[in-house]
Amino acid sequence: MCPEAEALDGAPARERSERSQSERAQARALHGERRSLSVGLLGHGTVGTAFEELLRERAGPIASLTGRQPVLSGVLTRQQGSFEEILERSEVIIELIGGVEPARRYVLAALEAGRHVITANKQLLCEHGEELFEAAARNEAQLRFEAAIAGIVPVVRVLTESLQGIEVSRIHGIVNGTTNFVLSEMESGCSYEQALAKAQAAGFAEADPSEDVSGRDAAAKMAILARLAFGAQLTLQDVRYEGIDHLEGDDLQYARELGLGLKLVGTAERLGEGISVRVHPAFLYSGHPLASVSGSFNAVTIEGDSITEITMSGPGAGGKQTASAVLSDLVSVMRSVDHGGMSFPPAQRLPFAEDVAGAFYLHVDVADRPGVLVTVAEVLVKWGASIKSVLQRGLGENARLVMVTHPLSEANLRAAVQEIAELELVRCPPRAIRVIEEEFT
Amino acid sequence: MCPEAEALDGAPARERSERSQSERAQARALHGERRSLSVGLLGHGTVGTAFEELLRERAGPIASLTGRQPVLSGVLTRQQGSFEEILERSEVIIELIGGVEPARRYVLAALEAGRHVITANKQLLCEHGEELFEAAARNEAQLRFEAAIAGIVPVVRVLTESLQGIEVSRIHGIVNGTTNFVLSEMESGCSYEQALAKAQAAGFAEADPSEDVSGRDAAAKMAILARLAFGAQLTLQDVRYEGIDHLEGDDLQYARELGLGLKLVGTAERLGEGISVRVHPAFLYSGHPLASVSGSFNAVTIEGDSITEITMSGPGAGGKQTASAVLSDLVSVMRSVDHGGMSFPPAQRLPFAEDVAGAFYLHVDVADRPGVLVTVAEVLVKWGASIKSVLQRGLGENARLVMVTHPLSEANLRAAVQEIAELELVRCPPRAIRVIEEEFT
Repeated sequence: MCPEAEALDGAPARERSERSQSERAQARALHGERRSLSVGLLGHGTVGTAFEELLRERAGPIASLTGRQPVLSGVLTRQQGSFEEILERSEVIIELIGGVEPARRYVLAALEAGRHVITANKQLLCEHGEELFEAAARNEAQLRFEAAIAGIVPVVRVLTESLQGIEVSRIHGIVNGTTNFVLSEMESGCSYEQALAKAQAAGFAEADPSEDVSGRDAAAKMAILARLAFGAQLTLQDVRYEGIDHLEGDDLQYARELGLGLKLVGTAERLGEGISVRVHPAFLYSGHPLASVSGSFNAVTIEGDSITEITMSGPGAGGKQTASAVLSDLVSVMRSVDHGGMSFPPAQRLPFAEDVAGAFYLHVDVADRPGVLVTVAEVLVKWGASIKSVLQRGLGENARLVMVTHPLSEANLRAAVQEIAELELVRCPPRAIRVIEEEFT
Repeated sequence: MCPEAEALDGAPARERSERSQSERAQARALHGERRSLSVGLLGHGTVGTAFEELLRERAGPIASLTGRQPVLSGVLTRQQGSFEEILERSEVIIELIGGVEPARRYVLAALEAGRHVITANKQLLCEHGEELFEAAARNEAQLRFEAAIAGIVPVVRVLTESLQGIEVSRIHGIVNGTTNFVLSEMESGCSYEQALAKAQAAGFAEADPSEDVSGRDAAAKMAILARLAFGAQLTLQDVRYEGIDHLEGDDLQYARELGLGLKLVGTAERLGEGISVRVHPAFLYSGHPLASVSGSFNAVTIEGDSITEITMSGPGAGGKQTASAVLSDLVSVMRSVDHGGMSFPPAQRLPFAEDVAGAFYLHVDVADRPGVLVTVAEVLVKWGASIKSVLQRGLGENARLVMVTHPLSEANLRAAVQEIAELELVRCPPRAIRVIEEEFT
C-alpha cells in the first residue's frame, strides 16, 4: 500500500502535510521527467465522458503548448476503479462526482498528497471551501474550479486574476441555466409547468428540479463568488434565496409591456461595511447587460468603481462546454505547475446586510371603483415608495394595477404590501418582485 | 552612465540579451528584497494620470495580496524625465505613450534589460508584435497588454489563459468605442456628422477621428487577437477594413424595422486552412450577443466547437477603466514575477481567405413600376442570392427596396450589385452591408 493511501479514510493526514516542500517538488518532477502529465478522473457522467473525449482530442496541441502531454491515468466510477490507485499514479485529480461525500474526502486526500485538484463541484466548495483552500495552500497544491460556477464563462479566472487588484463592489449573475431556460419559455407564453416540462425534455432540468428551481444551486454559486470577490467567509445559510416556482406567467406578460424581462438573478454586493448575498427573481430593463441572456446561457456582471462593469456570458451547462472549462483549468495547472499554486486572498467574516433597497414591481387586483389607484398610491407614498410607471386594466368588476416603484427599503416595501393587502378594496394580496434598474451609461 | 543606458539608441543590445538568466534573476531579487516593486511610467496623458492615481489608491491592498508594495519610480513625459534613469531604477515598465516611436525603442530596451513591460499600445503590438514577443521570451521578461485591445474587457487574459488549450474558430468584436458610440447615436436619429460631433463633445472622439472612423484602430486590435487566437503572423496590411464614414442614417432606420442593429464589427476566423481578419459595418439581429452593446462599450465574442461561445463586454475607453486593465496586468506580473514569464504559442504564416460568404442587407432606389421587385430579385437569384426579408416603400415616382439575403459569396454579391446598378430602372447604385446572423441557440 502506498503511503498516500493511508490517509484516505478522510481523517486529517498531518504526517503528510508535513512532508517537506522539496519532497513534493521531487515527486512532481519525477512525473515531469516522463514528459507526460498523469490525470486521474473521478466521475464519469455527462461532463466526465465529455472531458475524456476532449482531452484525447486536445492532448497534442496541449503538449505543444506546455511541453507535456496530459494522459488519463485512471477513471473512478461507482462500478469501477480504486481511488487509492488512481491517486497514487496521478499528478492532477479531476473531481466530477458532485455532492459533498465522497467528493470531499477524495479532494482532501488528493490535496494532502500534494496533488493538484480541479473540481466542478459548487456544493463542495460552498460548504467546505475554506477547508479545501487551506489544505491546498498547506500542501502547495493548486485547487481550480472554473467549471463550478458558470460553465465555460471564465468568471473565476477574471475575478481571481484580472480583478485581483481591483475593488469589486457588486456581482450580478444568472448562474443557473435551467431556471433561465424556464423563464425564457414563460416569456414566450408557456405556463411554469409547461416550461419546466420543456426544460426536462431538452435535458436542461433534472427529473427532480428542486435544487435548481428553488434557487439553491444559484445561491451556492453566489456564495463562492462572494468569497472570491470580497474575501468573505460564508456558507449557504448566509445566502437568502427564493426560486421561480411561485411565478405566474401573466407577470411576465405585463412586465414585457413595461419593457421588463424576468430573470433569476444572484447578487453579491458590498453594502457599507457589510455584504449582501442573495438570489431571487428580478425584472431587468432591456438595457441591462443581463437582460438579453436567454435560454440556458449564464452571465455574470462584475461592477466596481474603477472598472464600471464587465459582463461575461456563455453556455452555463452542457457536457462539452463544462469539460472545456475543466480542460482550461488543467492547462493552467500545467503551465504553472513548477511555479507554485494559486493563492487566495485572506478571508474574513463580514456582516450581512439585513435590508437591501431596491425598486419593485407590484401586481395587485382591486375592486374597480373610482379613486382606487389613488388609495393604493397613498399607501405606497406613506411608506416612501414613489411610482415610476403604472398600468391599470379593467377586469369586469375588478381592475388590475401593475406598478414599478423607484427604489425603497425592503422593510418599507413589506410594510406597504401588508397595508395594501388589508385594504377593503383589494381582491388578493399584492405580488412584489424586485426590479434591477439599468445603472450603466 | 549605467550599463543598460548604452542600448537605448534602439540598436539591438546583444551583449545584454546574453546576460545569464541568473544575473537577471539576481537583479530582480535585489529589488524584491526591498519588499517594494518599482514601477516606471512612460507617458502621462489621460490613462497615465488615472493609472498613477489608481496605483496610489490600491498600493496597500496589492501589497497585502502579493507581499510587495508597488511604488512609482519615475514618470516620463515629453517635458520631463529621463528614460534611461527610469529604466535603471524600475523592475516593471509601463508604456502609455502610444504610437510606434519612441515607444518601440523604449519597450525593446526595457525587455532587453530584463524588465517586465506592460503596454496599452495596439499600434506597436500590431506592427512589431513578433519582435517584442521574441525579445520578451529571450530575456525572460513578461510582456502584458490587456489594455491594448478592449479596455477593461479581459479578452487577452481569457484568450491566452482560459482558452489556451481550446480550439477557437472565430472572434467577433466591437473593439472601437468611438464608432460604437457614433452608431448608437445614429440609431437614435442623428446624422453621421451630428453623431460624430456628439462623440467629440463627450470626449470619445479625437479632433481628427480618422483612425477610429476608418476602421483602422479596430483592424490593429483584430490583428492582435488573430495572433493570440490562431498563432497567425500578420500585420495591418493583412486586415481588410472599412469604416463607418460612408453610412447613411436612413440605413439604420430601415434596418431597425427589420429587427437589425448596426455595429462596426471586427472578425477573425479560421476558414478551411486559412484565416480571415476584417473589420466592416455589419447589421446584427437583436438576438446576437453583440447587438445590445451600445454607446462607447466594447465587446468580444469568442467561438469554438467545444465552448459554443463566450461573450465579454465592458467599457472600451475611459482613463480609469483602461488604467484598471494596466493595474490588473501589473498585479499578474507581481504574482508571477518569480515564476518565469508568460509564453506565447508559436506563430506561423497562415493563408488569408479572399472571399468570405455572408448574408447582406441591400438598399436600392428604383423607378416605381410594376414588376420592379421581380426584376431586381431575378438578378439576385441569378448570382445565388436568395432573399430572406424585404421591405418595399413608395417614394413618389420612385420606390425603395430594402432586402436581407441569405448567405452568399462576396464575389457573387459584388457581381449582383454591379448588375443591379446597371439596370435601367435603378436610380442610384445599391448599397450593400453585411449581416451577421444569429448562430447560437
